[in-house]
Amino acid sequence: MRPIVQCVPNISEGRDKEKIERIIEPLKDHNGFHLVSYEPDADYNRTVITLLGDPEEMLSPLLAFIERARELIDMNKHKGEHPRMGAVDVLPFIPISGIDMEACTRFANQLGKRIAGELDIPVFLYGEAATKKKRKRLPNIRKGEFEGMKEKIRGNEWHPDYGSPRIHPSFGTIAVGARLPLIAYNIDLATDNIEIAKRISRAIRGSSGGFKHVQAGPAHLQERGHVQVTMNILNYKQNPLYRIHETVKMEALRHKVDVPSSEIVGLIPKDTIIRSLRYYYAVKGQSLDEEDMRLSEIAEAAKEHFGFRDFGVEKIIEANIEED
Amino acid sequence: MRPIVQCVPNISEGRDKEKIERIIEPLKDHNGFHLVSYEPDADYNRTVITLLGDPEEMLSPLLAFIERARELIDMNKHKGEHPRMGAVDVLPFIPISGIDMEACTRFANQLGKRIAGELDIPVFLYGEAATKKKRKRLPNIRKGEFEGMKEKIRGNEWHPDYGSPRIHPSFGTIAVGARLPLIAYNIDLATDNIEIAKRISRAIRGSSGGFKHVQAGPAHLQERGHVQVTMNILNYKQNPLYRIHETVKMEALRHKVDVPSSEIVGLIPKDTIIRSLRYYYAVKGQSLDEEDMRLSEIAEAAKEHFGFRDFGVEKIIEANIEED
Repeated sequence: MRPIVQCVPNISEGRDKEKIERIIEPLKDHNGFHLVSYEPDADYNRTVITLLGDPEEMLSPLLAFIERARELIDMNKHKGEHPRMGAVDVLPFIPISGIDMEACTRFANQLGKRIAGELDIPVFLYGEAATKKKRKRLPNIRKGEFEGMKEKIRGNEWHPDYGSPRIHPSFGTIAVGARLPLIAYNIDLATDNIEIAKRISRAIRGSSGGFKHVQAGPAHLQERGHVQVTMNILNYKQNPLYRIHETVKMEALRHKVDVPSSEIVGLIPKDTIIRSLRYYYAVKGQSLDEEDMRLSEIAEAAKEHFGFRDFGVEKIIEANIEED
Repeated sequence: MRPIVQCVPNISEGRDKEKIERIIEPLKDHNGFHLVSYEPDADYNRTVITLLGDPEEMLSPLLAFIERARELIDMNKHKGEHPRMGAVDVLPFIPISGIDMEACTRFANQLGKRIAGELDIPVFLYGEAATKKKRKRLPNIRKGEFEGMKEKIRGNEWHPDYGSPRIHPSFGTIAVGARLPLIAYNIDLATDNIEIAKRISRAIRGSSGGFKHVQAGPAHLQERGHVQVTMNILNYKQNPLYRIHETVKMEALRHKVDVPSSEIVGLIPKDTIIRSLRYYYAVKGQSLDEEDMRLSEIAEAAKEHFGFRDFGVEKIIEANIEED
């Protein structure tokens, strides 16, 4: 089975549909990977593109795509609400299955080297591919944006990882990296008391002493008539879903509040679910037949153990890939 | 009721008993606070001193004690295994009851100012009293130790918070600060499988993504014939005991291992127990009569809910203070 990564380049154009189509064209109709989606945002003036498949096959098309963006986007004229420093602003490789973070970091380096060498664009490595601690978080690199980067890149501290220490005059610069998928996970509380969602959020989120990779806050779902703890999980391996789910249930006990259901926003890798099913099956004293379970069975088991609502096999990333 | 702090100065002398007695003498026989203990360590060549009581009453005696240390300890001749930068190396104020962190920070500042002004010793503020993020952790300040501090203190980055940027020639320099009490808490697992204690430690400790202020590792208790998760809790307000205890129980479920008991090493403030009893009483739907509970009742309730073994009222810090 081929390795599968998710690759999510962001381009600094979200208004001119025709231009976006021309930039994205080199990413269409490949055997080794799929162009899953692209979502232009006019306010941000930015488009988020999602690719899924074999990273080896993505490299040359990505290079052609970046070359198109260099040709068609002039950052000197770009305005939008989202911070940005380049025509293709950021490009992460995200391990989904059959590949680890180290391999994704290697692909980030291969692509970065070619972007600098063939397209004359300076490259910063970020996330797990970062070469310095300060470059791990993208906002640190991007600070000053396109306009400030002209000066910033000249100093020793912000010398690019590939290429020369001057921005491309119209493209700017790009961050290429590797990171775990971000899981958007919300847990429903059977109450409309937002204070309870606040208190539970504080108990579990990293910023107030809870689980390191969990960002959490309270939300009130007007139409459904209850509150929830809404979360981003930045590292589902160190902070698995079951542990967060069970801790929220434990905290809810003191408020006499039930935790009837939860939801995944967007897609999640199969591995996220499997890691948590291992816990629930072990607690029940049952063995989990990981290798032989079909994706539809995994989805059903997830619904049963997490109370996922509006969930189906199509929310598992791997279900969106046909085997070649 | 008077405010109560714990104050724990460390001196760089752990071998010469007579000298230690002379240095400590100004801390004895006061009405407003008690000299609870002092524990010389010959290998470290260091003595940890514990005071308990009203911080206002401690200030002048502490100053006399530091003056004695300045007189009797020459850091140019000091050798020991523990890192150190001064004759009195570190001096934290720890809020126990009737006082908050802000007030402890004020006492650290008052004492620091007098140490610099009256004794000509440069002072660094650390912990919650730190004036810069980098000075929060004591090891950052102490790096280079007495020998390296001569140079280090001259640069802009390590200008002392009080006093001039040169060490006292024989005393060195001192860190004065404010911090929460450190809780040493061990949870017993009904198994002799150390791997299970390792896995649970990894799940809960900050360094591997768990609760931020929890340091945890596995331990095998040879004589008792079982393993435990052994912990330091650096902030019991953000990481309360009940949450750690319940999370360990939740993780133990997957290993089919019981969590029969736990233990507190050293003393804990009443507040630590009360905060967790609030949880257990709320879960049971009972109200906790915080104001009217006697310390002995609090100790009993803690034993019941945490399975504390070898625990009694004497382990609660407040039980060691007679009201004046």
